[in-house]
Amino acid sequence: NGNFFLIAGPCVVENHDMPLEIALVIKEITDRLEIPFIFKASYRKANRSRQDSFSGIGDIAALESIARVKSQLDLPVITDIHSAQEAEVASRYVDILQIPAFLCRQTDLLEAAAKTGKWVNIKKGQFLAPESMKFAVEKVTGTGNNNVMITDRGSMFGYQDLVIDMRGIPAMQEFGHPVILDITHSLQQPNQPGGISGGKPAMISTIARAGIAAGVDGIFLETHPDPSNAKSDGANMLNINLLEKLLSDLVMIRQAYLRTQ
Amino acid sequence: NGNFFLIAGPCVVENHDMPLEIALVIKEITDRLEIPFIFKASYRKANRSRQDSFSGIGDIAALESIARVKSQLDLPVITDIHSAQEAEVASRYVDILQIPAFLCRQTDLLEAAAKTGKWVNIKKGQFLAPESMKFAVEKVTGTGNNNVMITDRGSMFGYQDLVIDMRGIPAMQEFGHPVILDITHSLQQPNQPGGISGGKPAMISTIARAGIAAGVDGIFLETHPDPSNAKSDGANMLNINLLEKLLSDLVMIRQAYLRTQ
Amino acid sequence: NGNFFLIAGPCVVENHDMPLEIALVIKEITDRLEIPFIFKASYRKANRSRQDSFSGIGDIAALESIARVKSQLDLPVITDIHSAQEAEVASRYVDILQIPAFLCRQTDLLEAAAKTGKWVNIKKGQFLAPESMKFAVEKVTGTGNNNVMITDRGSMFGYQDLVIDMRGIPAMQEFGHPVILDITHSLQQPNQPGGISGGKPAMISTIARAGIAAGVDGIFLETHPDPSNAKSDGANMLNINLLEKLLSDLVMIRQAYLRTQ
Amino acid sequence: NGNFFLIAGPCVVENHDMPLEIALVIKEITDRLEIPFIFKASYRKANRSRQDSFSGIGDIAALESIARVKSQLDLPVITDIHSAQEAEVASRYVDILQIPAFLCRQTDLLEAAAKTGKWVNIKKGQFLAPESMKFAVEKVTGTGNNNVMITDRGSMFGYQDLVIDMRGIPAMQEFGHPVILDITHSLQQPNQPGGISGGKPAMISTIARAGIAAGVDGIFLETHPDPSNAKSDGANMLNINLLEKLLSDLVMIRQAYLRTQ
Repeated sequence: NGNFFLIAGPCVVENHDMPLEIALVIKEITDRLEIPFIFKASYRKANRSRQDSFSGIGDIAALESIARVKSQLDLPVITDIHSAQEAEVASRYVDILQIPAFLCRQTDLLEAAAKTGKWVNIKKGQFLAPESMKFAVEKVTGTGNNNVMITDRGSMFGYQDLVIDMRGIPAMQEFGHPVILDITHSLQQPNQPGGISGGKPAMISTIARAGIAAGVDGIFLETHPDPSNAKSDGANMLNINLLEKLLSDLVMIRQAYLRTQ
Repeated sequence: NGNFFLIAGPCVVENHDMPLEIALVIKEITDRLEIPFIFKASYRKANRSRQDSFSGIGDIAALESIARVKSQLDLPVITDIHSAQEAEVASRYVDILQIPAFLCRQTDLLEAAAKTGKWVNIKKGQFLAPESMKFAVEKVTGTGNNNVMITDRGSMFGYQDLVIDMRGIPAMQEFGHPVILDITHSLQQPNQPGGISGGKPAMISTIARAGIAAGVDGIFLETHPDPSNAKSDGANMLNINLLEKLLSDLVMIRQAYLRTQ
Repeated sequence: NGNFFLIAGPCVVENHDMPLEIALVIKEITDRLEIPFIFKASYRKANRSRQDSFSGIGDIAALESIARVKSQLDLPVITDIHSAQEAEVASRYVDILQIPAFLCRQTDLLEAAAKTGKWVNIKKGQFLAPESMKFAVEKVTGTGNNNVMITDRGSMFGYQDLVIDMRGIPAMQEFGHPVILDITHSLQQPNQPGGISGGKPAMISTIARAGIAAGVDGIFLETHPDPSNAKSDGANMLNINLLEKLLSDLVMIRQAYLRTQ
Repeated sequence: NGNFFLIAGPCVVENHDMPLEIALVIKEITDRLEIPFIFKASYRKANRSRQDSFSGIGDIAALESIARVKSQLDLPVITDIHSAQEAEVASRYVDILQIPAFLCRQTDLLEAAAKTGKWVNIKKGQFLAPESMKFAVEKVTGTGNNNVMITDRGSMFGYQDLVIDMRGIPAMQEFGHPVILDITHSLQQPNQPGGISGGKPAMISTIARAGIAAGVDGIFLETHPDPSNAKSDGANMLNINLLEKLLSDLVMIRQAYLRTQ
């Protein structure tokens, strides 16, 4: 139906049942709105600012918990990997391997992900121009795997802010792969004194609408039933109660966008 | 009808007849699309990078040429001023006085514009956070003149680029005045070696759609029948032949936006 | 003796006697250290963030107070102007006319300053690349006045920070005019929520030493006997008690720098 | 003698003999100037923009070639690692393990490097505020290994430029570990259209002098007998013929700096 797709979930697997619970809520909403839905959760956080931040419940336990979403709800699932070794393991559980933004230049990691034959979602580094993502994409397609998507999660703007440059969306679509806007992380404000990224959740709807009107193929966002108690990235997450209103608004903008094309 | 409004015109008055000719074309389009239209032209360019750039046909001649658009087409008109002295003179010819972005911190200029009783459109300095525009607005409202509008024309992003931060739109709307997105100038790429600002005109539609979906009250753009021969800012101007398609697309996005509110 | 020169003073004339008092203290120090000294004070602040900030004691009274420093202490003096009209008036009192950073692109102002025949010190806009200052310089030299100096006061780095790019110093020296580093203002952190620029005064010595080693011709700084009670820019000013230690350190770095050339 | 130390070498091991040849030239110069010298070379480049860039002669061959510098010239040596697995292997050959800037947030990598007991040199991410390096340092010291050094290689400034913020030097020295300025990489201009980082080698001396005067503990630079034919980063490398002049200039600045403390 020409709708955008949604990559969403709770940031990190906090316990065994939570992925399924959250996925179920999102699936009901996206089914109603006819939005293709890909469930996302991290099985481990490898690059937290502070060593004492929560990093996971164990890799295999978390991956199994994600795979359960796939099997029980018949949903495609995505998770992020941090080293070439993890690519092969994670690929047994998920449909899409995600390359974190800080790691989007690591040739070994991109090639290892590509060689699993799975889709690869490369996040644009906060330090990378949209045009430079061409080279990251080519590290995947160079192996013969053309299943690449690109996610923008903002660009450094001074030390303590990220800016979302809407020019990057058409610029990266020129490479011929789907482009996704990560609303949650592009609204972070990094390098805060306490080591925990702050953000402006009230901006979520504004940025998502703008991205849809700019023509993104997909939206990425993290959602949680209780963001203030989330174990990672709570400051920018969308309360899951607000998700249906947001998505139905985006569907209206998307339909208008489609008529302009 | 809840539509956005349009501030548009040819950048600078290049000769006596050109404002009327361009205004007529735009008026026909905006009448059809029911978009409130304010005609804009500069009567002089006071801050060109290079001393040898074209700066105008003479102040009074140019102001009269702008006023003719007002009287003959019954359109509100806007022009920009560069010193307190110019405020009073220009206010005899136009409905709205525009404060250039570089000058948005000049208290004398803001107060002089305010005291004419005309509407004042303050462009956000490329060096200013959206939140800081509150103080510029207060320099006008402090005189008792509440007719203020704010226009975003991008923020410095390194030396040679501007970025349009969509977060600024709701942030500035909180001051209680209309917020406009200047598509033409926010796509400039300043500080180019030759002293002439470059830009990416192909991005005009993307940024305008995103701005409308983010909720701007108005759109500002410069248009010209022959951008490559325009005497100022030609690199970013929209060819007037493309205006109707652009605006009708924006109307569709606006209607979807209104349904989300 | 190849030493750098110093432009210093109290930011704004706060009362009639204060310029002379501060100039006297600085003169004793710079005489001992053989540093050529130019006294600087503003007679009015025209671009304060907030309308309710202190802006001066009256233009002519303040200019006379600055001129008294010139006549009684036999020192060159500098002040900043904000419109073409002010150029002629101020030029009767001072040796150097300073163009504020926000106004460095205003052709009328630059030409008016140039035509007084006085030296013109152009501050680099926070939004300007060092290379682009070439065009500002040419607006002065184009009138036949070659007495130009350029002052760097930082470049926008996100919304709330300025960064001092040492590459700009040799880049601007290539134009053939003295280049000055404004330590006080390049350490500002603009766009703070309360409308008053914050800064990091503890960094003054670090940045000044780096600038001298990078080869600047002059140092600009604001100093005050009681920065916490200064009526403008107090947050970044150097307490005058610390000036001699700072300058004698800079003389040592300068001497080393000269030996490297 | 209070001198700064130097980390230098040819970027990547291009063939077996080259490390020893270059190290020998640098050692003669640094012995004369009494500058402690640490030889640096990468054994592999893991994050080149383009997949077709040169990445190495083989890991073990390259590590042996670096170790030969250590044994034959009695010099400490440093190399960079890209995954936790590499830490243990590389630690058998070198004295210092370097964490690349893009990877400075990867907890596993920092901990693996720390646990070898070797010194760890963490490069500040181009996306990281100096103050945020505290958390990276703590990931190493949290293991009980206090042998950490920090290297600044610039911060993102728009998409295509890096800026060296001298304020970061004292800010990072407050953590209690040596701070190094990487002249070569902080002068890169990333995200260039061709995928190869450009730069401004003429600025090397300016930035190095400024860094020394700002108080850095060490200087990092890449040097090559023939930069235009170097297989990596040639655009910013210093021709080895110019090294002695540069370093002797820096020694003079350093001596002046020491007298200011």
